[in-house]
This record gives sequence, C-alpha cells and structure tokens, in this order.
Amino acid sequence: MSSGSDYAVQLQAAADFIRGNDDFLVVSHMQPDGDAAGSTFGVAWMLHAMNKRFTLINEGRMPEKFKFMAGSLPIIDYEKDRPNRMFGKVISVDCADFGRIGKVKDCFEPDALLLNIDHHATNDLFGTVNVVKADAAATVEVLYDLAVELGLPFSAEWNVCIYSGLLTDTGGFRYSNTSPKVLQIAADLLNRGVQGHDLAERLLETMTFGQISLLKKTLNTLSFSHDNRIAWLSVSLDDLRSSEAASEDMDGLVNYARNVEGVEVGMMFKEKQPGVVKVSLRSGGQANVAELAQRFGGGGHVRAAGCTIHGTLEEAIERVVQEVGMALS
Amino acid sequence: MSSGSDYAVQLQAAADFIRGNDDFLVVSHMQPDGDAAGSTFGVAWMLHAMNKRFTLINEGRMPEKFKFMAGSLPIIDYEKDRPNRMFGKVISVDCADFGRIGKVKDCFEPDALLLNIDHHATNDLFGTVNVVKADAAATVEVLYDLAVELGLPFSAEWNVCIYSGLLTDTGGFRYSNTSPKVLQIAADLLNRGVQGHDLAERLLETMTFGQISLLKKTLNTLSFSHDNRIAWLSVSLDDLRSSEAASEDMDGLVNYARNVEGVEVGMMFKEKQPGVVKVSLRSGGQANVAELAQRFGGGGHVRAAGCTIHGTLEEAIERVVQEVGMALS
Repeated sequence: MSSGSDYAVQLQAAADFIRGNDDFLVVSHMQPDGDAAGSTFGVAWMLHAMNKRFTLINEGRMPEKFKFMAGSLPIIDYEKDRPNRMFGKVISVDCADFGRIGKVKDCFEPDALLLNIDHHATNDLFGTVNVVKADAAATVEVLYDLAVELGLPFSAEWNVCIYSGLLTDTGGFRYSNTSPKVLQIAADLLNRGVQGHDLAERLLETMTFGQISLLKKTLNTLSFSHDNRIAWLSVSLDDLRSSEAASEDMDGLVNYARNVEGVEVGMMFKEKQPGVVKVSLRSGGQANVAELAQRFGGGGHVRAAGCTIHGTLEEAIERVVQEVGMALS
Repeated sequence: MSSGSDYAVQLQAAADFIRGNDDFLVVSHMQPDGDAAGSTFGVAWMLHAMNKRFTLINEGRMPEKFKFMAGSLPIIDYEKDRPNRMFGKVISVDCADFGRIGKVKDCFEPDALLLNIDHHATNDLFGTVNVVKADAAATVEVLYDLAVELGLPFSAEWNVCIYSGLLTDTGGFRYSNTSPKVLQIAADLLNRGVQGHDLAERLLETMTFGQISLLKKTLNTLSFSHDNRIAWLSVSLDDLRSSEAASEDMDGLVNYARNVEGVEVGMMFKEKQPGVVKVSLRSGGQANVAELAQRFGGGGHVRAAGCTIHGTLEEAIERVVQEVGMALS
C-alpha cells in the first residue's frame, strides 16, 4: 500500500486532520470484530484526551463482549437510534471500503471530510485523508503509531483498546500477521499496566452458552475419510436453532477438524437454508484449498477457502469429500 | 529468589561453568512439557555452537510433538536405553528440585558438578551452580539471557526452542506470567526468522485423535447448576480407554467448563480407578477454589485447585457440586 515514508506522511496528515477539526463522527464496519471495537473506542479515547467532541455510531449492535472497552462512552446503534443531525467530520476505522460503513453514511454531510484509518491491503483510499498500513496486523496498530505522532499520553482505557484489537486480530498472537512490531507494542502496553491475561480470557476464551452447545453438537458430527487425511464437521439448520447459537458462533469451528493430527484438509458444512450448504475448507499447509473451492465455484486463500453447494447436507458432504479425496491422491 | 544483580552474577557463573567444562549430561524433568523440551534442546544447541560434547537423557519418552526441536540431536530415554557410563558434568533444566530429575541421577558420578537452570520460585538451589529466575515465565527465558551472557550467535534451531518454551509455558502468551520481557524476546525471535504461527499451530492447536475423541465424549457430559454459576465435565475410566486418550490429554479440558459465560466455578471429575475420583476446580476469579478443595482434603491456588474423592463418579459430583453451590450462595 505505501512505503515507510509515505506512511509517515499519512500519519502526519491524519494527526493534522484531528488537531484541526472537532465534533467527529467515529464509525467502524457492520458486525464489528475486536479490532473494529478496539479502534472505534481507541479513537474515542484519543479524542477524549484531546478535549474534542465526538459521537460513536455503528450500524447494528456493538457485541456485548466488546463493551468493556467503551467504559462510560456511549455508542449509538444506527438501526435503533438514528441521530437527528448530520456530521461534517468523520473518522472511519477498520473499513476496507466505503460500503463497509453501511447505513451510517446517511448522516454524513454531502461535503463531509473523512479520515480513513485502516490496515486492509484492499483499502481503496476512499477518505479525504487516508492512513492505511497494509502490513499492520490490525487497525489498532495504526492507532498506536498515530498516538505517538500526536504525542498523546497513553490512558489506561486506550491501552486496553489497543491490546484488545491486537489480541483479536492476531488470534491471540498466533496468526502469521503477528509481527515483531505487534509483540513490541503488546510488551509496551503490558509495561503500562494492561492485564493481558484478563483480556485474553475475556476476548479469546469465554464462550457463550450458544457457542459451547453448538461445539458439543458439532463435534458429534466429526468424521474422517481417506486415511484420516480429510476431516469434516457439519451443522444443520436445526442444530443451529436448537443450540440457540448465532451464525457467527460457527466461526472457527472448522479448525477442530483441521487441527487433528494428520488431517490435511478440514471442512465445515453449514446448512444456510434448505438445499443450500456453505462449505469452509482449511488446509494444514500442503493442500491448496482455494483451488479445491474453485472447482465448486468458490474461492479464497491457499489455506482457507469456501464455496456454496446446492443440495442437502448429505449430498454436499458426499460431493466435496469425494472431490477433495481425489485431489489429495 | 534473587535480586537483579544476583541474577547477573548467577548468569556469569553459569557461563563460566559451561565455558570451563565439557562432556555434559543434559537432563530435564520426567513427563517433559514444552518448556522442558525447549530448554533441553535449547541447551543442546548452545553447547553444539560452542563445540562442546553433550548427551541428552530424560526419564521416559520425549513426547512426539516436541521432537521437531531436536533436529538431528538424539535424546535417550533412560527407561529404555540406559547409558553404560557415568557423567561428571550435569546441566539440569526446568527442574524445581533434585527429585524431578528422576532415575537419570543414577548415571551422575558421586562428585558430579551440576548446573541448575530453572525458573520455579520453589527451586531449592540443589546445583553446584544455580541460575534460577523466579519471575521468568519459562526456563527458556533464562536460557535467552544465558546465550546473551555467553555471546553466542542465535541459531535458527535454538530460536525455535526458545520460542516454543515461551509459547507453551505462557499458554500462547495468555497466562499472567506473560511479562513484557516475554513478548520482547518473542519479538526478537520473530525478527530472527522464527515462524511463530507454525509453532503456535503445532504446539497449541494440533490435537491427537485421542484428544479430540476425548473432548467430544467429555463435552457430552457438560452440566450446569446453581443458575449456571457452576459447570462440570466428567470422564469415566471407560471413556478414557475407549477414546484411546492418554491421561495428559485430559489437561485443559476443565477450561471448557470454566470458560462458559457466567460460570464462576468450572470442574472436571476424572475417575482414576474404580471408587477414586480426582476433581479439578477452576475459578473465573471470584470464587476461591483452593478453599473449596481444602474442604475435601485437597488444595491449590485461588483460581486452580484439586482434590480426590472416594466414591463413584456420580457420588463425587453430587457431593462436590452441593458443597460448591452452598459456598457460592
């Protein structure tokens, strides 16, 4: 996206944007994850420290599990509580494109100035001012640099937001985006008093009733074939309903198939509606699941891909397992 | 255990011990964990870099999952392949007391010199030379300091051992022993080329068939009481046998009970032999499970404790759940 010195210029421009304006709308993407929440509240605590006015609005509910980052700061759910005013200064965080902002854009003034803070390589620089670092693990990593640029004191609340965003976007410092810089920032935040173990427990380990109940049901479907080189799990619509789980509670379950010793391709079959099955494919590194997913009109990355099959769960499993099995042999 | 400057003196003495001797026996504790393995092989790679002779011996088998750290270095299982010689220079790693070395002590010469490298606060300094840092998260953290003291180049193999020990002893940088220094060392090792995500996948996420099969069986026993403030799992002898799981595969399963939202005490009941049930208790932070375990003749820490109950699984569950429930109310 940008060379190091470009990034420094972007940071300066972003700092000038914040210093020179006031009364900001801060918005992240729909269905916010930990980094979206961390960067929304992180920006808010920075503005708070600078005595700037701001309003936090998102399309849809901020998940309960992220609200501790907000402290006393209110965040508006645009779907429930549309503001009766417009905003001329906007800061978007963790949004790869303008569309990710969703309906909240309806309260931007036509000539609103927008500061776009993000880390997605695909970011199309839709802002008036853009600070986008494609090799950052999380948007909060960019915020860290921005706070340094602004010369802000790091408040306890802000530290927690930054650590939380790093923790969630790197899968607890496990994904390949865990750079030396991520760990250096995390070390700095621990030094400043962040209780990293509490945040890890809260953000990475706690499961809802729906999640544990769905995990239990799903593990009972675990199956293997082709000398245990292929493993899969499935979730029917009934399973999802009866476990009172949300759709996002299925995220990550596919790893239980992929992580079994010796498994080369792990898969998850989710019945989205009668006759429509979504398949997630994960590779331990040897198989190219993007290529496998393409055979069914899907796509993705070498180690994580997906496709949609029309048919019953059983039919989808049979077709895909057979194809993957042939590809492995 | 020691003040900062004492530690510096200990490091110098340890470095002198290694520089001034040769032909070492390197030993860790029985049933080695990731830090024991990482520090055994870590010392070996350091001695290798110094052109010193060494023999690695442990009581019992080195678990398969840690062998990648050894590369081409052989490690002897004392139970299977007793060496027909004695050793006069010993380096023990990650052993809190002499007893943890187990039977391997039988091949120490009577006047053997022993370098004791460890991080347990309870270490009783049983070595001729001791380098023990009680606030280190792992023994490999001490090795890192020792390699700096010795001025050794950090080899790729050694880097992997150190990262692996940190990763496993901190539960993937999640436990409260994850200090700023741990993350700084980890950042340094990533900078030197360690593939942290591969190690995390290998050491923290991969499950054996036995483990996943046991997890599946165990989750089916998940039960709640007292407004879902208590949750428990149980494993019968039959479950353990039929899942072809090892006893250590049960480690950590108790967290599935504790990590459910709202649960204050999570428990695991393991039938050790007919009529004997081992209970692991975990607290989310509010309840003091050490005190609860003491009521049944057990003990432990505020957030992690255990006890043994004589009776059937059902009887043990009834007795303990009732007692814990009364304590919570």
